[in-house]
Amino acid sequence: MVQATDLPRNEDGIAEALAVLQQQFGDRCQTGQAIREQHGHTTTWIKNQSPDAVIFARSTDEVAQIVKICAAHKVPVIAFGTGSSLEGHVNAPAGGISVDLSQMDAVLAVNAGDLDCRVQPGVTREALNTYLRDQGLFFPIDPGANASLGGMASTRASGTNAVRYGTMKDNVLSLEVVMADGTVIRTGQRARKSSAGYDLTRLMVGAEGTLGIITEITLKLQGIPEASSSARCSFPSVDAACRTVMNVVQYGLPVARIELLDAQTVGAVNAYSKLDLPETPMLLVEFHGTEAGVAEQAEVFGMLAEEHGGTGFVATSTAEERNKLWQARHDAYWATLQLRPGAKGISTDVCVPISKLAEAVGAAQARLAELGFIAPIVGHAGDGNFHALLLVDPDSAEEQEKANDFVGWLNDLAISLEGTCTGEHGIGQGKKPYLLKELGVATGVMAAIKAALDPDNIMNPGKILPG
Amino acid sequence: MVQATDLPRNEDGIAEALAVLQQQFGDRCQTGQAIREQHGHTTTWIKNQSPDAVIFARSTDEVAQIVKICAAHKVPVIAFGTGSSLEGHVNAPAGGISVDLSQMDAVLAVNAGDLDCRVQPGVTREALNTYLRDQGLFFPIDPGANASLGGMASTRASGTNAVRYGTMKDNVLSLEVVMADGTVIRTGQRARKSSAGYDLTRLMVGAEGTLGIITEITLKLQGIPEASSSARCSFPSVDAACRTVMNVVQYGLPVARIELLDAQTVGAVNAYSKLDLPETPMLLVEFHGTEAGVAEQAEVFGMLAEEHGGTGFVATSTAEERNKLWQARHDAYWATLQLRPGAKGISTDVCVPISKLAEAVGAAQARLAELGFIAPIVGHAGDGNFHALLLVDPDSAEEQEKANDFVGWLNDLAISLEGTCTGEHGIGQGKKPYLLKELGVATGVMAAIKAALDPDNIMNPGKILPG
Repeated sequence: MVQATDLPRNEDGIAEALAVLQQQFGDRCQTGQAIREQHGHTTTWIKNQSPDAVIFARSTDEVAQIVKICAAHKVPVIAFGTGSSLEGHVNAPAGGISVDLSQMDAVLAVNAGDLDCRVQPGVTREALNTYLRDQGLFFPIDPGANASLGGMASTRASGTNAVRYGTMKDNVLSLEVVMADGTVIRTGQRARKSSAGYDLTRLMVGAEGTLGIITEITLKLQGIPEASSSARCSFPSVDAACRTVMNVVQYGLPVARIELLDAQTVGAVNAYSKLDLPETPMLLVEFHGTEAGVAEQAEVFGMLAEEHGGTGFVATSTAEERNKLWQARHDAYWATLQLRPGAKGISTDVCVPISKLAEAVGAAQARLAELGFIAPIVGHAGDGNFHALLLVDPDSAEEQEKANDFVGWLNDLAISLEGTCTGEHGIGQGKKPYLLKELGVATGVMAAIKAALDPDNIMNPGKILPG
Repeated sequence: MVQATDLPRNEDGIAEALAVLQQQFGDRCQTGQAIREQHGHTTTWIKNQSPDAVIFARSTDEVAQIVKICAAHKVPVIAFGTGSSLEGHVNAPAGGISVDLSQMDAVLAVNAGDLDCRVQPGVTREALNTYLRDQGLFFPIDPGANASLGGMASTRASGTNAVRYGTMKDNVLSLEVVMADGTVIRTGQRARKSSAGYDLTRLMVGAEGTLGIITEITLKLQGIPEASSSARCSFPSVDAACRTVMNVVQYGLPVARIELLDAQTVGAVNAYSKLDLPETPMLLVEFHGTEAGVAEQAEVFGMLAEEHGGTGFVATSTAEERNKLWQARHDAYWATLQLRPGAKGISTDVCVPISKLAEAVGAAQARLAELGFIAPIVGHAGDGNFHALLLVDPDSAEEQEKANDFVGWLNDLAISLEGTCTGEHGIGQGKKPYLLKELGVATGVMAAIKAALDPDNIMNPGKILPG
């Protein structure tokens, strides 16, 4: 268990703000221990630091009111979506108020002609896609979890489709944000592009709620492609699979997804789902386009894979078979946990230039073997982003320390390869030490922006930056 | 001539800084009137406000030295690339030092395997593409002018290819920037994506040199497509052409370019290049992909165009014929100027949601006719961005005032249609009044960031924000 640092609490301020908030929000301001703990919940190993209260907000006005009250008393405000973040983003190291946005879950507008929509932050990606389906539209970003779109924007999430459709930074057109003094801003209009001043949209995307709380999101959408097909291919080595990915990217093949599963992951999936996939590194690929286009893409992919010793190439375009193929990828997390029942999974998140991916994955595998960890690796290979899921005994301080050391070693390796310690999970509390290693004095610029926009450090304090 | 406001000059500081800089940079610190005027040159109607000196910098260290000296004396520093900006970006309303980056023109690294490169800011887009050609790579952003990549990053430039490849914000991976105190930061690593802290890359892209001077740029590259083809099609009305564009976008057709020329522009091009294109609204389209892919795209486009009354559809894939077809587009600016010899061209730059493009172009045409302006319109239609080029008598104050009023009217219209006053030219001096109308209190957040990162307001003062 990483001992996330507790920060000094403003006890008087918290008590005063809480009294006002309870009066104003009644039942929707909850202070029971279970609900507070749930709102400090992290899906990883960082210890729970519960807020003092949870308020279920229903409108931008309400969020602004909460922030104004907290600002007046210098009390922390932490935005909460679905709690699926991985680096302690929703913890309350200095106490304060968790603003639960899950009831702000309305799709406010869909402009099919412009391929955009406007949603409240509590809408989840699955709910949005269900809402859009009969208009022939979809929102492509898929981080795995059924996260809220506000949370996805705040962590600059991406996932399996990013190689084709980009990350949240590429798919948010504009935001409504409640700033640290309660002011409500809109960061942009609905035009597809703009050169109007500083890019506040991109500044808020990935800011993890430390500069303001996102209360509305205008998103780019995609038309559901005429045709989709999927393929899998096995490789003699991680290196061969990664070289294939590099060629695919260089070729300009517009793959919608290209995922790497290492041999250990394939083994775990076989055991979990009773499959008999060859237990070697595997690539899972998806193509979107016209009927002829996806057929051509699959053919080119098969050719490139063969050049690197790929075997067992299977492409399929029926929805049922595609789903079956991707089930292996979707099951990977749960399948992996079954390799060591009772263990806790700790996920790494480095991202390197694609030309360095084979080196990084190979080095990670060797180091994990040396340390004796069971830790299968899956990767969003087209982005150079991969996750090792270390299975750690939650009762062994020694194992946890060893895991922590490995995470640090891997982050350092990625940074030395011109990569990043976090491709998509964010900094939160867990990766703060590595941000400085990665970006050096640029973190001073971040701190200056934070101080200018949130001088009392009430917006999700203790995340991203020191203090 | 718009009377760009002069700002108070720090005469003592300028004299002191200049003495130090002249000693340090010798011949490369120039104060002749011609060169100073050239560096305050604007390609539009904004009056020239020359800097006090121009220094030709050769390295990041030199830029940092210049900024440190200017910071010590509170003297403005204005970055200069090729001077092709359109909104007074390189003017020196409070005097100060123009830092000419044209000699920092080295391509520092090309990583073909990762489809990226690192360049100095003085490299122009044409020079980069010449450099890349024999590696089968290209950089897609094409704003028309052979601008420097530092300047293009600073104005968040885009142009004809943005509908497929995005704008500078989507194609810059990371930056090296000299901040207002002379500190040199790097905003990111070379990974394709990252969730590591605030997105300083996107904050600097489009900041017009008001937060720092870009001294290195890491750019995403594209493989030169296996096949390209182009097509043109004439339409009975702007509305029919715009509805076709909307359908193309909704269909998900990955057009590389889709440009609108109104009837007046086609007429001008016919006269200038001795062509006999039908003088009705026209779309020019380009497709990139595989042989089969571009053929399929052209076929789908032809079908969609026909549904809206498109005629004279011609698709061609030989380089020579494609170039001839695009010549009409490239000639549009010069052809338009010939419609009224001696007149000065004043370009608008609004960008609206695509569903509002027909309404915006139609309203602009009607208003221009009512005001008696010759003002052909071309548009990056796939982005909803269009330019009217008003031909104005440089000696008539009345015409210029009328043109100015029109620009304001059009900006207001675009904003009311959920669009922006600037799709790609930037705010500079010319569009400052409209930024507030467009983004309201969000401009206060921009001002707070500016004050935090440049407390003495020495970085390109008087641009984007008031003061």
